[in-house]
Amino acid sequence: MTMEGFRVLDEKSLREYIKATPSLASKLGNEVDNFKIKEVGDGNLNFVYIVISPSGSIVIKQAIPYVRCIGESWPMTKERSYFEATALKRQHGLSPKHVPEVYHFDRTMSLIGMRYIEPPHIILRKGLIAGVEYPLLAEHMAEFMANTLFYTSLLYLTTTQLKSAVAEFCGNVELCRLTEQVVFSDPYKISEFNRWTSPYLDTDAEAVRNDQILKLEVAELKSKFCEKTQALIHGDLHTGSVMVTHESTQVIDPEFAFYGPMGFDIGAFIGNLFLAYFAQDGHVDQGNDRKTYKAWIMDTIADTWNLFYKKFTSLWDIHKEGPGEAYLHEIYNDLELRELVKQKYMMDLFHDSLGFAAAKMIRRIVGVAHVEDFESISDLVKRSDCERRALEFAKNLTKKRRNFNTIADVIALAK
Amino acid sequence: MTMEGFRVLDEKSLREYIKATPSLASKLGNEVDNFKIKEVGDGNLNFVYIVISPSGSIVIKQAIPYVRCIGESWPMTKERSYFEATALKRQHGLSPKHVPEVYHFDRTMSLIGMRYIEPPHIILRKGLIAGVEYPLLAEHMAEFMANTLFYTSLLYLTTTQLKSAVAEFCGNVELCRLTEQVVFSDPYKISEFNRWTSPYLDTDAEAVRNDQILKLEVAELKSKFCEKTQALIHGDLHTGSVMVTHESTQVIDPEFAFYGPMGFDIGAFIGNLFLAYFAQDGHVDQGNDRKTYKAWIMDTIADTWNLFYKKFTSLWDIHKEGPGEAYLHEIYNDLELRELVKQKYMMDLFHDSLGFAAAKMIRRIVGVAHVEDFESISDLVKRSDCERRALEFAKNLTKKRRNFNTIADVIALAK
Repeated sequence: MTMEGFRVLDEKSLREYIKATPSLASKLGNEVDNFKIKEVGDGNLNFVYIVISPSGSIVIKQAIPYVRCIGESWPMTKERSYFEATALKRQHGLSPKHVPEVYHFDRTMSLIGMRYIEPPHIILRKGLIAGVEYPLLAEHMAEFMANTLFYTSLLYLTTTQLKSAVAEFCGNVELCRLTEQVVFSDPYKISEFNRWTSPYLDTDAEAVRNDQILKLEVAELKSKFCEKTQALIHGDLHTGSVMVTHESTQVIDPEFAFYGPMGFDIGAFIGNLFLAYFAQDGHVDQGNDRKTYKAWIMDTIADTWNLFYKKFTSLWDIHKEGPGEAYLHEIYNDLELRELVKQKYMMDLFHDSLGFAAAKMIRRIVGVAHVEDFESISDLVKRSDCERRALEFAKNLTKKRRNFNTIADVIALAK
Repeated sequence: MTMEGFRVLDEKSLREYIKATPSLASKLGNEVDNFKIKEVGDGNLNFVYIVISPSGSIVIKQAIPYVRCIGESWPMTKERSYFEATALKRQHGLSPKHVPEVYHFDRTMSLIGMRYIEPPHIILRKGLIAGVEYPLLAEHMAEFMANTLFYTSLLYLTTTQLKSAVAEFCGNVELCRLTEQVVFSDPYKISEFNRWTSPYLDTDAEAVRNDQILKLEVAELKSKFCEKTQALIHGDLHTGSVMVTHESTQVIDPEFAFYGPMGFDIGAFIGNLFLAYFAQDGHVDQGNDRKTYKAWIMDTIADTWNLFYKKFTSLWDIHKEGPGEAYLHEIYNDLELRELVKQKYMMDLFHDSLGFAAAKMIRRIVGVAHVEDFESISDLVKRSDCERRALEFAKNLTKKRRNFNTIADVIALAK
């Protein structure tokens, strides 16, 4: 936690740092006098540099002890970098095709050196706004989520392993508190940080703050976020944390990682796909009514859950006699009982996921951080119409999530 | 965790230890050549000494690195002593009238020096077997549970405080695993450790192992035990962990303490009262049909829950604008909404408590560790009849717990 030895790097000092660090220089083919550095951090928190030599490339991410887009007045522990590096390594180990490799981590400098996710990879959110279909997205995300969630849960770990990991990630509490504030608190009260498409959504935002049943449900979701140590979750798995091409899907930025409810990851991803869906009407132009694309998004949502279900329960089957201590094989050895147990677990997870999906949608419409899906709709009437439909859907979903048995039912509600 | 410096004390070496330890000697009025030591450990795990001088008294409890009643073949970390001392201090701070004061803790020696709970205090379980009424028991236990659970939860703590405490108590994992095994696993499978009143309960024990719905529900309870970090719980709050007189109630032995579901404590206590209830018919003699006493036990169960409810929600009201981050006052500021939130929270807690109560009952009838309430019934036919009724009640309670709205309904089922 000490600041000793820490300094914020710029291009010049980063150049010296790389030269002096064999694990980084080697990835550039040791061409230490012949590489280019470009600062590309478009996030709110960190500095990100792309470093390219004729023989290789790396990305350098440095956390600074405050929120970058606001300044030193909003301190934010740079120790988040430690948790990001730890989660990246863990997730890369569990889902190597969908998580960049970490080459180097320097805790003092809060600096991660990792694989450069090269063009034509773009941020998924931008692809969704542009109307690009990614045929393998659902498959890849289902695989990432099934692997990272299953193998870090008590379905695969012993209690001893689980509690040790829980304890370690309790240290990432500042980032958890930030999520609590921006997802579960601010949208439901008057806050200087909240904003929305005003004046069009003024009454909608007020309605959220006065919706007692909604707030009752959000309280339950928040409790689960704070108290349910189910798996090592990414913690910020929206469509801005995913980079894609037609063939490749890469999950980045797990600095919010901690032991929490699995549904928070699944919900973040699905909820942001729903946001993309509701934003499509704002991106209609003469040549493209986006109808086909809307159908593709819905199919992707359905496929994501259904494939996740299949992959996750299949891992469970494979490891049913494994080290996991949640359901001991000697007790749950009956085929029918195992099916019952799985159905119950997966239904609870489904309802959690829907609740968190909805909470993540609401906060993007009336909370502090908005999404480019809507922000890029310049016509405010159009934008607010899209946002309102998304908001109404999300409110309904929060309240009625336990009534849904399949993702198809949820999609029918959205349509 | 090191053994360095650790040695198991006997009366002679304990005498030297006390002489050399001012915080202990002072409690004996520094009469270091004039005190008596008596070993009284009747538990399964530790050594316990009562030390009395003409001017004072203390209890010394030393944990050894194995299960005392089995021997070195069953290792058990002596670090449990650290968690016991930490929990005792915390709980004494929160409920000083019902938890003995810790005078001294030596982590290397796994040794706690604390208040001697003097006669006529006896273990509550023995009082219940003898048919003694304790008019303040429900009030006191409700107060202990309300204070220790409320103030260690997110209803009073910040997320930062909660996660720090969760992380610390993750270290007590060996004791958590023991509970997982003896409460949630062994009774539901063939295990060398299980026993029951054979042959009378042979088919009953088998029925437990083959009851699919029961095992489905027990899995959910186990998940909550392993994953729900709701409050610092005692972890072993049965009627053998409570010492009583007519005026006083003292809760001891929190070596199983960790961050878990509140309902596990409430359930442990209530479940063991139900065991005492079902055992009464085995203690009937010519002079006493125990009818009045059975009614008193039922009243005590009802009072415990109802007083707990009142005290716990009252603490919540008092601190509604306090530091707790679960329900921010700015969001939950509406009176009607606050009532809704409380009702939902308490109903969930009630159902958790009933589930854990039932699980704790079942394991005492067909698991490894039995209770004196039943064991002291020498007529095996009578004993097994009592046990069978308790077992049937507990199985029903596990499966139907969500249908109960009041403790009176539960008591009606038991009767």
